[in-house]
Amino acid sequence: LTFCLKILGSGGAIPAYGRNHSSQILTINGKHFLIDCGEATQHSLIEYGIKPGKIEAIFISHLHGDHYLGLMGLISSMHLQGRTKSLIIFAPRGLKDIILIQLKYSNSILNFDLKIEELDTSRRRKIYEGKSFTAESFPLKHRIPCCGFLFKEKPKLRRINKRLLPQDLSLQNIIRLKNGEDAMDDEGKVIYKNKNLTLPPRISRSYAYCSDTCYDEALLEVIHQVDLLYHESTFLEDRATKAKETFHSTAKEAATIAKKAKVKRLIIGHFSARYKDITPFETEAVEIFKETFLAIEGQDYCVEE
Amino acid sequence: LTFCLKILGSGGAIPAYGRNHSSQILTINGKHFLIDCGEATQHSLIEYGIKPGKIEAIFISHLHGDHYLGLMGLISSMHLQGRTKSLIIFAPRGLKDIILIQLKYSNSILNFDLKIEELDTSRRRKIYEGKSFTAESFPLKHRIPCCGFLFKEKPKLRRINKRLLPQDLSLQNIIRLKNGEDAMDDEGKVIYKNKNLTLPPRISRSYAYCSDTCYDEALLEVIHQVDLLYHESTFLEDRATKAKETFHSTAKEAATIAKKAKVKRLIIGHFSARYKDITPFETEAVEIFKETFLAIEGQDYCVEE
Repeated sequence: LTFCLKILGSGGAIPAYGRNHSSQILTINGKHFLIDCGEATQHSLIEYGIKPGKIEAIFISHLHGDHYLGLMGLISSMHLQGRTKSLIIFAPRGLKDIILIQLKYSNSILNFDLKIEELDTSRRRKIYEGKSFTAESFPLKHRIPCCGFLFKEKPKLRRINKRLLPQDLSLQNIIRLKNGEDAMDDEGKVIYKNKNLTLPPRISRSYAYCSDTCYDEALLEVIHQVDLLYHESTFLEDRATKAKETFHSTAKEAATIAKKAKVKRLIIGHFSARYKDITPFETEAVEIFKETFLAIEGQDYCVEE
Repeated sequence: LTFCLKILGSGGAIPAYGRNHSSQILTINGKHFLIDCGEATQHSLIEYGIKPGKIEAIFISHLHGDHYLGLMGLISSMHLQGRTKSLIIFAPRGLKDIILIQLKYSNSILNFDLKIEELDTSRRRKIYEGKSFTAESFPLKHRIPCCGFLFKEKPKLRRINKRLLPQDLSLQNIIRLKNGEDAMDDEGKVIYKNKNLTLPPRISRSYAYCSDTCYDEALLEVIHQVDLLYHESTFLEDRATKAKETFHSTAKEAATIAKKAKVKRLIIGHFSARYKDITPFETEAVEIFKETFLAIEGQDYCVEE
């Protein structure tokens, strides 16, 4: 089953050199979740053949324009394309005012139920429960209220070792085995030990999104050992002072966080428009954390089961 | 001197088939004026090498998202790129609320003075006076308050016929001639008749922007004989009922207005996303008004002096 991240935008505050504003699609078991929604996100969705109507929920990290200005147009297109399924958007306080005032002046009444849940960006908490995963928001340190998101598959069942499975085993016993119990006969006597017929569950995959933020070791606990980490790196280390002043990070800082949190893979993005060539970001980060990849528009980063 | 219109977006409410949301740049004597600003207008400006900092004023026809959602991102980029020159935006009532609430939640204080002048969309009036032209807003009939814009060069001076000009004529007399007066000696006696030394002034070029609107003959008086008319044509005639219901126009209706108003050239646009191929719009319109052209992204439509 899929657990894939597609980058729609890798740029910082100003679109430049083909790099769009922050936006990503996380696809879990075929369902799409949109993370941040900079201007022209709907254009990217068209480009990559992702139907807006198929988006289940939207997660907005903060209310700087490059992270949410595509929302109103996307909502409007969903409406015009006949969406009836309700949509939930998670965002820091203020988004509701911003959306409602625009709906008011355009005299729009949406065909679908739009729910905007405003987040407490000061603490970590579970905000969404899907069929197979949960999403948590957690605080990021930026110039305005800002949060990251942690998507984590729920614990999975043990896997039946089909090669060893006796043919006469009842469905009830198969469920018992998957849940980690032993198989029993009608009188409750163990007939097969769980460990003899099952394999450990597949890993519960996880993705953490950290944008925008300064270097912050408070993140380590939250993102510890995630399979995939996106961490902003607006600047290179030669502009570390500028990064500090604006509550952004450098490629080196992102890599340091990834290394300390023992994540499996790091994706860096939110590159400032002052850089035309972004390969130095990779060079700088890889030196500290080998499994670093550049966010590139249209690229998929999948976690195997 | 230039009087050119560049189309940035030719599409209707949903971007489709490479057609972006409504936006145009009118360049008069080298100065840029932005007319409507749909989502991703700043991306188009980058594509066509137009510096946002060089935009003198912005004219917004109405508050449907496809006509203004690119504004906030554009304003933000102007700020980040260090604009200090003040900017004026003309728009129907509501835009100020929409912009201010977004500046508030993003905690932004702009480097430049942003003036939003809210328009009375119920009547025609002069709203802007440039060095060489004036802009008027006038009512359009749409589902929400909406106005068109008429840009018209000011009357020009008579041209000196250099071939016939006596060498000894004073500067004062040349100015007299350009203003339509006769040349005189120090005692106020006519020495050259104006008509003998001058040619008529060049024409005062004009451009009218009509989007979005239903078919409305009240426009004829305003747009009478303009050099360039943009009139929306969201639908083809086979969807005339749909056009009427949604206060939009068909290609045939746009052409009829152009013909009745005796304009020189018509550009049609705001094509609905339901049409992949837009050549039928041209076919339908040209039958009624020969000088019809399709709005196409990146295309320039200039009026010669």
